[in-house]
Amino acid sequence: MTGGEETSVTLDLLKKKMDDFAKERDWEKFHSPRNLLLALVGEVGELSEIFQWKGEVPKGLPDWKENEKLHLGEELSDVLLYLVRLSDICGIDLGQAALRKVQLNAIKYPVKKSNEEQVDN
Amino acid sequence: MTGGEETSVTLDLLKKKMDDFAKERDWEKFHSPRNLLLALVGEVGELSEIFQWKGEVPKGLPDWKENEKLHLGEELSDVLLYLVRLSDICGIDLGQAALRKVQLNAIKYPVKKSNEEQVDN
Amino acid sequence: MTGGEETSVTLDLLKKKMDDFAKERDWEKFHSPRNLLLALVGEVGELSEIFQWKGEVPKGLPDWKENEKLHLGEELSDVLLYLVRLSDICGIDLGQAALRKVQLNAIKYPVKKSNEEQVDN
Amino acid sequence: MTGGEETSVTLDLLKKKMDDFAKERDWEKFHSPRNLLLALVGEVGELSEIFQWKGEVPKGLPDWKENEKLHLGEELSDVLLYLVRLSDICGIDLGQAALRKVQLNAIKYPVKKSNEEQVDN
Repeated sequence: MTGGEETSVTLDLLKKKMDDFAKERDWEKFHSPRNLLLALVGEVGELSEIFQWKGEVPKGLPDWKENEKLHLGEELSDVLLYLVRLSDICGIDLGQAALRKVQLNAIKYPVKKSNEEQVDN
Repeated sequence: MTGGEETSVTLDLLKKKMDDFAKERDWEKFHSPRNLLLALVGEVGELSEIFQWKGEVPKGLPDWKENEKLHLGEELSDVLLYLVRLSDICGIDLGQAALRKVQLNAIKYPVKKSNEEQVDN
Repeated sequence: MTGGEETSVTLDLLKKKMDDFAKERDWEKFHSPRNLLLALVGEVGELSEIFQWKGEVPKGLPDWKENEKLHLGEELSDVLLYLVRLSDICGIDLGQAALRKVQLNAIKYPVKKSNEEQVDN
Repeated sequence: MTGGEETSVTLDLLKKKMDDFAKERDWEKFHSPRNLLLALVGEVGELSEIFQWKGEVPKGLPDWKENEKLHLGEELSDVLLYLVRLSDICGIDLGQAALRKVQLNAIKYPVKKSNEEQVDN
């Protein structure tokens, strides 16, 4: 792993790793958009299971054990990796789309008004 | 937008943008782990709605109109942005976790064996 | 609406209503298993949105307005109706499956042991 | 099991079974609305995993083995049982809400117009 990877992981790097991973295993045939979407939903389910019986959880997870945090990191990653792969298979540049969406959100929720109340999207 | 952003969006950049966004609007009080998780589930639902009545969809979405692809990019981004924010609020380095997960997956699914059949995780 | 429906709604009644609904609108062609599953995920997303910014919510929803409860009932119903329809299209008797699952759960989580700690399934 | 249960399972029966199940195990303390909601999301994830690598699946699941159908029935049931429990804990009569929602849907999607095209909700 290079120093660059350690300090700043790019979406393009993850996209390439997922593509290589699928190619090496001949899994490209399984990676249709809806297959990947359902796999993503499956991972969101596993992520939710981590939080399901805990009641409200404070920021920073102060009472969680190290292995619980590792597990959480793995489930967050599974969601991310399928999301990156789904975007790639759909021909969407996820990084650029995300930057654009942040800009759209800034227009939708101007700073002054949003200070007063949370608005659902 | 700088050239750097255009070519390679990092997870750290998105993390910072989400943090600034919340701070500017005084929304940090809403961003507890489980609130963000449920918001993520909500966005996964909106992503699913795009694909729900379409039957199987081929890679690259050849028959989709440009505005449908834009909409898809927005929903993929919403999932990503909440995932980045959830990770940050939980104190998880999502980029490093994802690199580590790819390595774990490579051990779990060795290239030779995986060529023969798809194995669920 | 008959008195029977008012006091005790059966899964078979909902199944029939969903089947009639689809037939009358010529929507059967859209109701493939994976289409319905993604529609279900979409509704679970809408259900989650209701709870997403609320923090912990007490049982019985004492502070919710009547129209919020009505909305919640609609989203819970949407999940149920797609679940009933998905089961039907898959040829699964959901009511019998649910009774059987309760029995399996009772074996998996015997009363004495489960009193001591919550066990995830 | 009585003959009545075999022919027509009611939502009220499942509600009572879930309530008894929780009481007997002293699990009521875990059954807050958002805990149950996240548990439901977890089960939807497990349901999705069954379908994730299959591509399009025909109605009636003609090529599925008996044990695959049993597993599917269990996951559909898990979603149903948490949905019934969540509704109960929220004080929502799920059966009545579902009947009402079918009526609302019939108004929203009149028979004539809906014959012409599928309309997303």
